[in-house]
Amino acid sequence: MPYFDAASSLPLHPVARQALLAALDEGWADPARLHREGRRARLLLDAAREAAAEAVGCRPDELVFTPSGTRSLHTGVAGALAGRRRAGRALVVSAVEHSAVLHAAEAHEAGGGTVVRVPVDRTGRVDAAAFGAALRGSGSPEGGTALACLQSANHEVGTEQPVEEVAGICAEAGVPLLVDAAQSLAWGPVPGRWSLLAASAHKWGGPGGVGLLAVRKGVRFAPPAPVDERESGRSPGFADLPAIVAAAASLRAVRAEADAEAARLRTLVDRVRAQVPALVPDVEVVGDPVRRLPHVVTFSCLYVDGEALLHALDRAGFSVSSGSSCTSSTLIPSHVLRAMGVLSEGNVRVSLPPGTAESDVDAFLAVLPEAVREVRAQLRAPAGADGESGGEGGAAAGGEAGGPEAADLGREAALTVDSRGKRCPIPVIELAKVIDRVPVGGTVLLLADDEAARLDVPAWCEMRGHEYLGAHGHAYRVRRSA
Amino acid sequence: MPYFDAASSLPLHPVARQALLAALDEGWADPARLHREGRRARLLLDAAREAAAEAVGCRPDELVFTPSGTRSLHTGVAGALAGRRRAGRALVVSAVEHSAVLHAAEAHEAGGGTVVRVPVDRTGRVDAAAFGAALRGSGSPEGGTALACLQSANHEVGTEQPVEEVAGICAEAGVPLLVDAAQSLAWGPVPGRWSLLAASAHKWGGPGGVGLLAVRKGVRFAPPAPVDERESGRSPGFADLPAIVAAAASLRAVRAEADAEAARLRTLVDRVRAQVPALVPDVEVVGDPVRRLPHVVTFSCLYVDGEALLHALDRAGFSVSSGSSCTSSTLIPSHVLRAMGVLSEGNVRVSLPPGTAESDVDAFLAVLPEAVREVRAQLRAPAGADGESGGEGGAAAGGEAGGPEAADLGREAALTVDSRGKRCPIPVIELAKVIDRVPVGGTVLLLADDEAARLDVPAWCEMRGHEYLGAHGHAYRVRRSA
Repeated sequence: MPYFDAASSLPLHPVARQALLAALDEGWADPARLHREGRRARLLLDAAREAAAEAVGCRPDELVFTPSGTRSLHTGVAGALAGRRRAGRALVVSAVEHSAVLHAAEAHEAGGGTVVRVPVDRTGRVDAAAFGAALRGSGSPEGGTALACLQSANHEVGTEQPVEEVAGICAEAGVPLLVDAAQSLAWGPVPGRWSLLAASAHKWGGPGGVGLLAVRKGVRFAPPAPVDERESGRSPGFADLPAIVAAAASLRAVRAEADAEAARLRTLVDRVRAQVPALVPDVEVVGDPVRRLPHVVTFSCLYVDGEALLHALDRAGFSVSSGSSCTSSTLIPSHVLRAMGVLSEGNVRVSLPPGTAESDVDAFLAVLPEAVREVRAQLRAPAGADGESGGEGGAAAGGEAGGPEAADLGREAALTVDSRGKRCPIPVIELAKVIDRVPVGGTVLLLADDEAARLDVPAWCEMRGHEYLGAHGHAYRVRRSA
Repeated sequence: MPYFDAASSLPLHPVARQALLAALDEGWADPARLHREGRRARLLLDAAREAAAEAVGCRPDELVFTPSGTRSLHTGVAGALAGRRRAGRALVVSAVEHSAVLHAAEAHEAGGGTVVRVPVDRTGRVDAAAFGAALRGSGSPEGGTALACLQSANHEVGTEQPVEEVAGICAEAGVPLLVDAAQSLAWGPVPGRWSLLAASAHKWGGPGGVGLLAVRKGVRFAPPAPVDERESGRSPGFADLPAIVAAAASLRAVRAEADAEAARLRTLVDRVRAQVPALVPDVEVVGDPVRRLPHVVTFSCLYVDGEALLHALDRAGFSVSSGSSCTSSTLIPSHVLRAMGVLSEGNVRVSLPPGTAESDVDAFLAVLPEAVREVRAQLRAPAGADGESGGEGGAAAGGEAGGPEAADLGREAALTVDSRGKRCPIPVIELAKVIDRVPVGGTVLLLADDEAARLDVPAWCEMRGHEYLGAHGHAYRVRRSA
């Protein structure tokens, strides 16, 4: 049963399992104790730190183990901001950082700090020059930029960020750069003059519950209280030492095969990127086609409910993930897709674990078109790119819509569709069903209060060649072009 | 090789190991994901939560897993204080709480809150009425008491606290009580109307890296930011699910044998408590003799360097721990011994793991006297209770000591000993060597800048029947009585 959600978590690498089992007998005691069991545990911990530091490209005394990549990011952001408080209270982050960075940024704002979110282009990539300008331009009345954060590669769409270039810009500006390397560390060290780095072991086949946090010597760092004497005062509490040993061992193991496996997976991902739009009508493949993680490909399918598609693929034996709003507890599309401005409905992330067989990828490509067709049929979606209008019109309705916010836009609209109270992708489906009812040049007013519409209505317009005239509150105006 | 440091950490319980291995194959995926691997992980997590909650005596939705007992305490204290901010900003703790609670209290003080530390008696026990008075008396200008913390039993000396009684007092006062149950949860649930509870799996043979935090429904709780959607927003980051499964399984397993094993270990500890003072001269056994953990016994040996004794016992094959200053990175005696006001030099904690053989305890009792004798001989300590004066006088010196702080006390002293710059237990040894040189009723002035002297000089006086006249800065005055 192919598991294609490697970017979320990987099964334990055989080397990790072996190391874990070997460390269970010697790694249970407190490494801070003076007795022989403590000393044995300390030796294991020291060896794990050496191995992990070598893979990260830092000194062992610059690296601590934390309970997760999330905790590494929380501590790294808070500690660097506190250590640099005199330099200023501004934090610069990309708009597509992992939620752990964005949550830490929100906490900083709640504490009176400022946060600058650098936008990305449609591929999900920040512009290094724009990032540098944000560093310099974010000076608040209390001073300048205390910290910048940039991921090495995006976790949802695989796009690599210009980390080396940004690290150089940060170094010149005297601002420390924290790199979230969670998605890329398995493939190689992060290049450039970064100051802090965070990563997570279960992304490379290590156990859950182990994060890495590297803080270069010379970087001012004041970890958030309370602390204790463990891990240089940067990660309190008794850690799971066998898990740490396993994490370090598996990082070495995946690195040994990284180049060959990256090349192999890149070919498979290229096949998915090329084949999906050929096999499935109305699909947008998102993320940078070249500067990307070797194992991740993400696409969105028009007129598709992401959760339903996930379940259809799950029934067919394929485990993937989605950034669609319907798969989120908050019912809003992933912040990454929003920042990129791409279609969010029917979103699927395929992330291939090391060792994925070519035949499994081909099997996925064989199954996907029918799965999408099935979901579209259930939703009575219009037919695909061939232009046939599907279904029998559904809930589309002519006439003037109520609600004061619609009044301005509604005056000019030839047709109004009220999709309020309906969830993604229904509003876009209802829009698609009526667009042919207005003459070319005529407009449709779509009323939709699902947050996903904000992303998906303009994306639909671009994909279908209609003109997106803008939104006013929950009212979207579209001009028929084709 | 007997390991007698169970209160620090235990080897993995066979049931924990079995559960861990079984969960490795199914517990690696993200339990928040919709695919089958995620659902399987979620099932494991739910089952572990049910089992742990039953052992704690709370509802599953009141219990979250954290990365350690320390993190449970940090989050528990901060979350309850923030949730009750309107009620007041005072925090009441016992003086002998685990350092994780005291560190959280210090962070609260640093943030402008107040902390009331309730003292303990010479056995390490708080008085419930005094604790209640502190609850009511701690109202600051900003309001009353937000939270109280009391451990179920002390981690260094084994003394049980009157948790049930204090919980009742707290409930009546409308103040939530957080119980640190790290040392006792293996032996049974914490009785009484507590509001929050923290514990740590590696204390009962579960893996490191797993803490429990229970927050009763109705308790106001605002976890410190940043948070995420995991564990009810109370413990961010991807956890080590197989470790959680193993933690829950081993808690059930140790509970099944708890009563029988407690009775057995209690007998062995009674033997140590009775035998050590009979076999080793000048020993103080500390902690409550009856209301205590079944497996912990702690004693301090006059004229002994705790670290040297630990190493001597280690060479003899016994792993114990110590609260002596010389075994601490900060070179101050444990805060527990300080709060109790007992001898801190030559401190040894023996904590027996489940299954400890009677013969191992007897072997320890056979080895201990020679180990102590050896360390005392190396330190040229005076001989024991038989009254012979040992060594040849060592560094003891008559005459007036320099330093302005000594001037006042020094005027009356018949003899001054300058032990400044010397570490525990040397100052007390030097004091013991000269006491016979002054006539009965005469005084000795001891100059000692080692923090341990503050505890050990009065303790020595009490043990040897001399009169402790008090300290002024680093100058201690003692009157010869015998």
